[in-house]
Amino acid sequence: MSEKRKLLFYGAMSIDGYLAREDHRLDWLIGTEGEEETSYADFYASVDTLIMGRNTYEQVLQLSPDEFPYEGKTCYIISRTLQDSLKGTQIIREDVLSFMKQLKHEEGRHIWVVGGGELLQSFIKAGLVDELYLQIVPVMIGRGIPLFSPMDMESRFSLKEVHQYKQIAEMHFVLKEEDH
Amino acid sequence: MSEKRKLLFYGAMSIDGYLAREDHRLDWLIGTEGEEETSYADFYASVDTLIMGRNTYEQVLQLSPDEFPYEGKTCYIISRTLQDSLKGTQIIREDVLSFMKQLKHEEGRHIWVVGGGELLQSFIKAGLVDELYLQIVPVMIGRGIPLFSPMDMESRFSLKEVHQYKQIAEMHFVLKEEDH
Repeated sequence: MSEKRKLLFYGAMSIDGYLAREDHRLDWLIGTEGEEETSYADFYASVDTLIMGRNTYEQVLQLSPDEFPYEGKTCYIISRTLQDSLKGTQIIREDVLSFMKQLKHEEGRHIWVVGGGELLQSFIKAGLVDELYLQIVPVMIGRGIPLFSPMDMESRFSLKEVHQYKQIAEMHFVLKEEDH
Repeated sequence: MSEKRKLLFYGAMSIDGYLAREDHRLDWLIGTEGEEETSYADFYASVDTLIMGRNTYEQVLQLSPDEFPYEGKTCYIISRTLQDSLKGTQIIREDVLSFMKQLKHEEGRHIWVVGGGELLQSFIKAGLVDELYLQIVPVMIGRGIPLFSPMDMESRFSLKEVHQYKQIAEMHFVLKEEDH
């Protein structure tokens, strides 16, 4: 297989499958023991482009008010309503699937879909997500924004590896190619 | 800490958090590579009592029509509507939380809450589930019965161990005692 540019999901969810509280807060996640040991640095070095929805973007700004944590990477924000975004980021209003297909054909390192929810969902449904790095934080928060929403299709992956970073369990899944 | 009798959950879910399809089918789960290697035998030997809802019970009968797979264990089925059940099993119509509290005070090996969904949820909300052995099968089935339903509370666990059994990722969580 050629070394094509991949779309990767890397992110955390609670045991009960939420990426954030209903008001987008991540307090239940931040400071989880083992955070500093995860594969994040290697993962982050493997991508040169990030793509995220408006909610994720706003959450990032709120968590890091002084410094945009993704400076130096190409950063796309998918939004029909956002008027303005930080220097170095770019608002995308066109069809997100066409945009991603085109992006995956360009030269470059891998692409990270940050956050989850609707945007991740639409990429999964289109068979565009090549790999998932899914981290489970050992808490059930009860209510929140689900990382994976219901959909009328299946998507099969291979489990490559599991890792324990203190209190964080990480699973690495790779899309089964025969489905697409 | 004394070696008290524990209520354990042991079971599988899809990446997107379902324990079964909407019609209770488990076809997406059965035959997953690694099944034969999991910790099931040791786990099963550690329990002498099983408790499950009617849906799970009926699914078990359908999957094992010739032989009840839990013979030799005390087996309780929680149901207000079920009229009759297999010899060796017992239908429980009384309040399930009181019943479980009493059961946990009796002498014996551990207790397994089989299946998931509503019954598991009510035990989690009452702080009665001591440990979870959660297995992730590398497929998103899109729609189904969620293993964990929304609830208006949080429940914190410690991650003890993660294991990979070929295509199955297993996480072992233990309830944080300070919450209860």
